[in-house]
Formats: sequence, C-alpha cells, structure tokens
Amino acid sequence: MPQQETPFDSAVSDLVVANRILAAEGVLDGFGHVSIRDPRDPGCYLMSRSLAPALVTTTDIVQHDLDSKPTQDKGLGLYYERWIHGEIYKARPQVNAIVHSHSPTVVPFASTKAPLRPILHNASFLGFGAPVFEIRNFIPNSDLMISTAALGKALAEAMGPTADVILLRGHGNVVVGPTIQIAVFRAYYTEINARQQLNAMILGPNDVVYMNAGECETTDKVMQSVAGRPWDLWKRRVQREMRRAAADDRLPHP
Amino acid sequence: MPQQETPFDSAVSDLVVANRILAAEGVLDGFGHVSIRDPRDPGCYLMSRSLAPALVTTTDIVQHDLDSKPTQDKGLGLYYERWIHGEIYKARPQVNAIVHSHSPTVVPFASTKAPLRPILHNASFLGFGAPVFEIRNFIPNSDLMISTAALGKALAEAMGPTADVILLRGHGNVVVGPTIQIAVFRAYYTEINARQQLNAMILGPNDVVYMNAGECETTDKVMQSVAGRPWDLWKRRVQREMRRAAADDRLPHP
Amino acid sequence: MPQQETPFDSAVSDLVVANRILAAEGVLDGFGHVSIRDPRDPGCYLMSRSLAPALVTTTDIVQHDLDSKPTQDKGLGLYYERWIHGEIYKARPQVNAIVHSHSPTVVPFASTKAPLRPILHNASFLGFGAPVFEIRNFIPNSDLMISTAALGKALAEAMGPTADVILLRGHGNVVVGPTIQIAVFRAYYTEINARQQLNAMILGPNDVVYMNAGECETTDKVMQSVAGRPWDLWKRRVQREMRRAAADDRLPHP
Amino acid sequence: MPQQETPFDSAVSDLVVANRILAAEGVLDGFGHVSIRDPRDPGCYLMSRSLAPALVTTTDIVQHDLDSKPTQDKGLGLYYERWIHGEIYKARPQVNAIVHSHSPTVVPFASTKAPLRPILHNASFLGFGAPVFEIRNFIPNSDLMISTAALGKALAEAMGPTADVILLRGHGNVVVGPTIQIAVFRAYYTEINARQQLNAMILGPNDVVYMNAGECETTDKVMQSVAGRPWDLWKRRVQREMRRAAADDRLPHP
Repeated sequence: MPQQETPFDSAVSDLVVANRILAAEGVLDGFGHVSIRDPRDPGCYLMSRSLAPALVTTTDIVQHDLDSKPTQDKGLGLYYERWIHGEIYKARPQVNAIVHSHSPTVVPFASTKAPLRPILHNASFLGFGAPVFEIRNFIPNSDLMISTAALGKALAEAMGPTADVILLRGHGNVVVGPTIQIAVFRAYYTEINARQQLNAMILGPNDVVYMNAGECETTDKVMQSVAGRPWDLWKRRVQREMRRAAADDRLPHP
Repeated sequence: MPQQETPFDSAVSDLVVANRILAAEGVLDGFGHVSIRDPRDPGCYLMSRSLAPALVTTTDIVQHDLDSKPTQDKGLGLYYERWIHGEIYKARPQVNAIVHSHSPTVVPFASTKAPLRPILHNASFLGFGAPVFEIRNFIPNSDLMISTAALGKALAEAMGPTADVILLRGHGNVVVGPTIQIAVFRAYYTEINARQQLNAMILGPNDVVYMNAGECETTDKVMQSVAGRPWDLWKRRVQREMRRAAADDRLPHP
Repeated sequence: MPQQETPFDSAVSDLVVANRILAAEGVLDGFGHVSIRDPRDPGCYLMSRSLAPALVTTTDIVQHDLDSKPTQDKGLGLYYERWIHGEIYKARPQVNAIVHSHSPTVVPFASTKAPLRPILHNASFLGFGAPVFEIRNFIPNSDLMISTAALGKALAEAMGPTADVILLRGHGNVVVGPTIQIAVFRAYYTEINARQQLNAMILGPNDVVYMNAGECETTDKVMQSVAGRPWDLWKRRVQREMRRAAADDRLPHP
Repeated sequence: MPQQETPFDSAVSDLVVANRILAAEGVLDGFGHVSIRDPRDPGCYLMSRSLAPALVTTTDIVQHDLDSKPTQDKGLGLYYERWIHGEIYKARPQVNAIVHSHSPTVVPFASTKAPLRPILHNASFLGFGAPVFEIRNFIPNSDLMISTAALGKALAEAMGPTADVILLRGHGNVVVGPTIQIAVFRAYYTEINARQQLNAMILGPNDVVYMNAGECETTDKVMQSVAGRPWDLWKRRVQREMRRAAADDRLPHP
C-alpha cells in the first residue's frame, strides 16, 4: 500500500474489496455491481466497467458522472444498468455507496406480496422501507432492467427519501448507505434477513414478531457504528483469497 | 494454449470448462453430461466418455454421430443416456450445446404438478416452455433413463420447437442453447430459478408474479448477449481449480 | 500403494476413503461410522476405533467379530453403537458394508409420519423399504442410541430382509449395501432424496409422483452398476484433500 | 505448544479455537462472542476484545470480572453485550463457558411462537428449556441488545436454573455449558436442531415426535461425555486453517 493513501485511493481500494466481499458471501453472482460516490467530486461516482464483481480490480474502476456517463471515454463496456447509481446519487445526497444485486433470497420477496420486514436486529434498516419496484407500471414487455435514465429516476423516486432498500420485481434489489462499509453490511443483512423471515413465516405465518419503528430507529444507529467489524473480517478474507488466487494462477496448467 | 486455436480446439476446451463449471456450481454431481455440436460437422457432437463431469479432460472427449454412435471405436465406455444429445441435435438445428443434469432443486418440480416458471430475469428462457417428460407414458417399470434412440426421440418431440428446458420426472432435466456459454448459463439459472420459485411459492402460494411472455421474449435476447460475463468468471475459477488440483495431486500421500 | 494389494488392504483403504467421502459430502459430521465386512472372514467386520469419521486413517481400523467385540484387545475406545453393524451383518449375509449417519435432512423424516420415498432415480433403493425404528417401543427414557446387542438385533429385525435403509427416530439412519461403493452411494442419495422429497412436498403436498415398485426394481440394478462413477470422483477429491491437509499441517503454527 | 501448559494457557487456547470453530461452522458470523470462566479465578471470565470471532487470537483475550469490567484497563474496545457473560456466570456457578451467537436458523424460532424443542439426540439439552427473552418487556424501542448489567441480569433470570439455551427475540441466542467443549457442542447442535425441526414442521406440522423429558435427561449425560469427539475434529480443522491462512497472508499482494 502507498504510504500516503488519498481518499480517492481508499475509495477505489474499498470498492474492489466490496465487490469481492459480496461475491464471496453469495450476495452477488456473475452479475450485479457496486459503486461509491467519488470523494473528490460528489457529482461523480466510481464503479467497475462491465465485469463480474468477483473479477473487479483497481484498473477496472471507471469514473461516471451523475448522468451515468463515463467522464473519460476509454471505450470500455459499461454496466447496462448504471442508471441505478447515477439517479439515486442525484436524489439522495446522503447516499455515498450503492449495491445492486440479485441477492437470491430477496428475489422471492420481490415477486410476491410478502413484504420484506426486519426480523434480525442487523437488518433494522429495513424498517425505513423496502418497497417493490414493478417495472410493468412503466414499460410493458421490458427486459426488467433499469436500462435508461428515466427508469433510474423512477426507481429513485420509488425509494423515496428514507428507504435504504428497494426490491425489483423479477430481478433483484438495490441497497444504499452513507459509506461503502454500511452499504455492504446492509446488502449482506438484507439477504440474511430474507432467509430468516422466510423461515419464520414457515414456523408461524401469523405470529412473526418484527422489529417496530422505534427499535429500528435505535438499532440502525448502533449497527452503523459497528459495520466496520464484519468489514474487517471480510476484507481480510478477500485479500487473502486474492493472494491465493494469484499464486494459484502462477501454477502450471495441467 | 496453442497459438492458432481451431474452432474444434475451442469447442473441446469449452466443453471441458463447461463440465467443470456445472460441477463446481452444484448443477452436476457425479452424474450428468454436457455436449457441443461439432464445429467441423453439424452431423456430429462432442461429449466425454462415461465419466463424472468434474473429472473430464480434453483426452476424454469423443465424437458421436447423431445416432449417438462414436465415430471411432476406441472401446471407451460411453454415457448410457447419450441419445438425449443425438436426438435433440437432429430435431433442433439451432441447438449447438446440451446439458443433462440432476439439478437438485429442479427434480422436485419434475415430480409434482407445479410448473417451473420464470421468476428471475436471468431465467427468462423458461417462458418458452419447460414441459415434464413422463417416461411411464412410454415404458412401464423403466429405469427412468433415456437409454434408447426411441426415448431420445420422444424426449426431443416433447420439447417441441421452442422449449429450451425439459424436466424428466424422477430424474432431472435437459437444457439447450445456441452456444455452450448460453447452455451453461441456462442450466445454472434453471437451478437458481427453481430455488427462488420454491421460496416464492412458500411466501405467497397464490400471488407469485411470473415474467409474462413479452418480458421473456425481450429479456432472453439480452441474456443471450451477456451470458459471457458469468462464463468468464466461472472459467477463471475452474482453470484455477484445475491448476491447484494438479499441484495438490503432486503432494506426497500422507 | 503396495504393488500387490490384498483384498484386505483394499477393504481398509476403501473404508478410510468412505469415511472421508461421507464427511466431505455432509452425510457424516463429527459422529457416525462406516464398516465393511472383512474380506478374509465374513464372520468379522472392519471399522474405525471411536473417532470422528473425517479423521479416520488406516491405523485406526479395528477388526470386530459379529458380536461387535474387537478380535484383539488393544485398549482402544470403540464406537458406542457398534452393535448396529454386527447385528445387521449377522441378519443379512448379502450386506457387506454399513453406514450409520445423522444425515441432516433424513432426521426430520425419522421424527414425523412422512415416509421417506424414492423421488430421484438414484435413490430407487428406497423403494425396498425405509422403515422408522422407534426405540421407545423397546426402552423408555433411553439415550436413543443402539448401545446393546439386543437393540442392534431389534434394529436388524425392523429392517427385515429387503430394506437397505432404516431411520432411527430422533437420531439418524442406517444404510447398507453389497459393496462399500454402493453403501456410500446409497447413504449419499438417501440425503439427496430427502432434500428433494421435502421440496416436492412443499410444491405439491398431494401430488408428488414417487417411483413405483417396478421402476425401483429396474433402476436399482442400473444404479448398482454405476455406483463406481461418483465413487471415483469422490475418492480423487478426498485423496487430494488428504494430501493438501498433510501439507498444511506441516506449515508453521502462526 | 509450551511443554508445561497451565490451565490458564489451555483456557486461552481453547477459547481461540472455540471462536474459530463456531465461525467456521456458520454459527457465528462477523458478530457474536465466546467466553470461558477463568480457571485461576471463578470470579472472572476470559473473552476477546471486540473483534469478529474468526479473527480472535490469544493476544486479544481480556480478563473481565463478573461485573464485566476488564481487570486491567488496556484501552481496548470491549464487546457491547459483555453483560450476558458476567451476569450468567454470577447466576449459574456450574456454567464455565458461554456462547452468544446470531445462529441463523435459531433467530426465526426467537421471533415466532414456535418453541425450539429437541428433535435430534445431540440436542437433548434443549429439553431443559429454551425460553425466549423479549426485551420489549423491559425496554421499549431498544436496540435489542444486552447492553447493560440490568439486562444481563434479566436475561440470566429468564434462563432460570436449568436452561442451557435462551433465545433473544429479533437477535440470536445464548448457550452455556460446564466446559467450553460442551458449550461449543451445544451451540452447534442448537443450530442443527433448529434446521431439522423446521424441516420436520414442514413435513408434519402436527405429528413431530420430540424427545421426552426422560430421554433428554439420559441422553444429555452421554452427549456431554462425547462432546470431545467433534471438538477434536473441529480443532484440527481450524488449526490447519490458521496455518494455511498465515501462509497465504505471506504471499505477495497481486
């Protein structure tokens, strides 16, 4: 690591780590993307070129403006749904990191009337709202993806001013946070909460006790303050995994 | 890698990678098989000799004609159900790759009346049909396997001209695609969709929103165009795993 | 490997591999045991001393007679439930290998009235019976374990002459086979079938299509003939894992 | 290892191993904590400073008195919920080790009326009680955490004199034992039992056969006596993993 790491260097490094963490934890598969607001310019965000998250390295990071255009045209393929990021950054100035995933146990909540609600204290942020975005209300026969600025804007509006999560019917979800550590924490616990809520609904369809509004308010503050603890663990793991992978890649092909 | 890789070399290499990917991702276990139409001759296909998919290497690949006979008799044991491949290649000229698996969460759909339907955009191809093949309609007291040309032909007919997936009651499924990357993508997302649909049916048995026909049509085109993204990731992983395994195999036996 | 491996050497080697396979595949955890009839003497069987299956090596294998006494008293701790093995070998001369596990998805079937039935062709042997052994019918307030010859005998009687699997209420199951490869295959697919049957019962509680008797009869013969295919894969994996573990154990302690 | 390991050395070493085991087995994620009563002084306990369990090493272990104050102030951050440990050690003199986790399949039981009950013999200790602690009965709009001595005391009282497990609504659970091996065993099998009970309740909501009181009494004694068997396995694995991780951390960063 460089001796004097700038905020930009840290942001790029954290962004690579965030991609790797969410892939390693099964929140992201070959698709999905993570962004961070550019610490040098709140009117821009940083995100990988179009690439499976588990393969992202620092050299893949591209600066986009809030219209989701790359600020330098290097001819790289960009994510088809980058509008998610630009439009939410425009609408929510406190948001500094965004995760879009096909988090596997969240999709079923996106495609039924069962609302995703906080059952685990780590997921208290769900108490601030977890609406479902139905793209059919905007475009019939679409590919379900947020492939235009207009759809990105509609998505940001559907999130409103408080929700940290929005579900996309037939598709996945988007999670935001004031820091990338908190956004990663929330993306992870959105999936964990979905699994636990599903099981609770099996155990007692009519008697699940969810966190109430006051508990969510109180708890989210604590959770934001401790989001660094799992981050430190996950970061250690993915950095080790990157070292190991690089070593394995130097082995002879059989 | 050779400097000038022929289409045949690429097909063999991709076929080995496809076997390894689907084993690593849990779609294939010790059984199942993957084939690719021979790029040198559309009247032939390439597939491993009878072997667990995770062990397949380039030297195991055998050319079969569309009657599922090996074009050179090297005395190798062949897959007992190779007729699946030959008969589908005969019936569906646009199909260039086929996966037969016992994909674990698809089997329950094959053995109940619950139809497998697209709940996740990546699995939009399910909208073109996912019929169930009931072998009892053809043979009583069978071993459930597609062990003759006649059964292979019946299976291909049951798929019809549009379905990319067919479920085999008590057994597994078959997935096809225009390229091996797309067939692997579809085999993987058939399993993922089955898991998500099962969970959605638990959450709201009567209110699951599936993709409609227009969405499937639109979405499948996009998905075919991006199937290379997870492929690149999966390929990197299995090639690394093969290097690591070969290195481990050189370690002394304890 | 020795140049001239005796049937006894092979049995011991296969027994170690079987322990490791079933631990690696999640059928066995820190408990459970695997035995093989002694190829030198059908009135004896080979099994590890009391040890977690994943740690068993050739030096841990102990010869037991069919009364489940060690033929040489080396003062080693023996499995508390070894009577399972001796009594079944007495009652079933065609049985040459036995697995006792707490296979995680089989336990729920052992503790409800839902019968475990064949839904996947690989598990056709379930069609020959999968009764539940209720130890309360023999001993009140027991520790649920088969800790005496009398309980072992009662268990063998409850299996009868044809069942290859018996479930133990609140505890686990026992699987038998004519070879250790087939017993391992069956123990693995008993777990897989349980998972798939559970999911099928969720999808359509009243319309699951199970394999019928004729299908089971036909299919089990084929499955016995191909049980070596996953065995070869699993054996390669556990041997590699043993090499890797031994190498890792030589690394310095941090 | 030192030639003459003191009881204190062993306790610290076992505590590190216990943290690693429960993280490796998925009982603990980035949160949760494990403690052991100080063998030199039953009025103190040993526990890591605030750190993800999978990262705990011997140098992180801090002695706390039973008021959950560190006996030496080294300025280290301590676990926010350490009162769980101190107050239970005060109330239950036979308890010598405590695990607090967010064990994933236990949370759903904590948030519904479905009682966690013993379905697997390894979890017979559940027969001595597994009450649910509802923090709303003490504090409205809390962060759900046991963040004061008063809450720790209320929790210990809710456990009463016999329960080895208590569930915390919306949060997790606490498991105790007379030794750290037994506490780890119980924390692991609390999760396993929850999974199996959930599945049994799906298979037959009204006909699950649980262990009765006499069976639990008898079985727990046996289980306590064999808890060392999986411990030996798990310890070997985490020690190997620690060696491997240290070696990987010496690899060059890519």
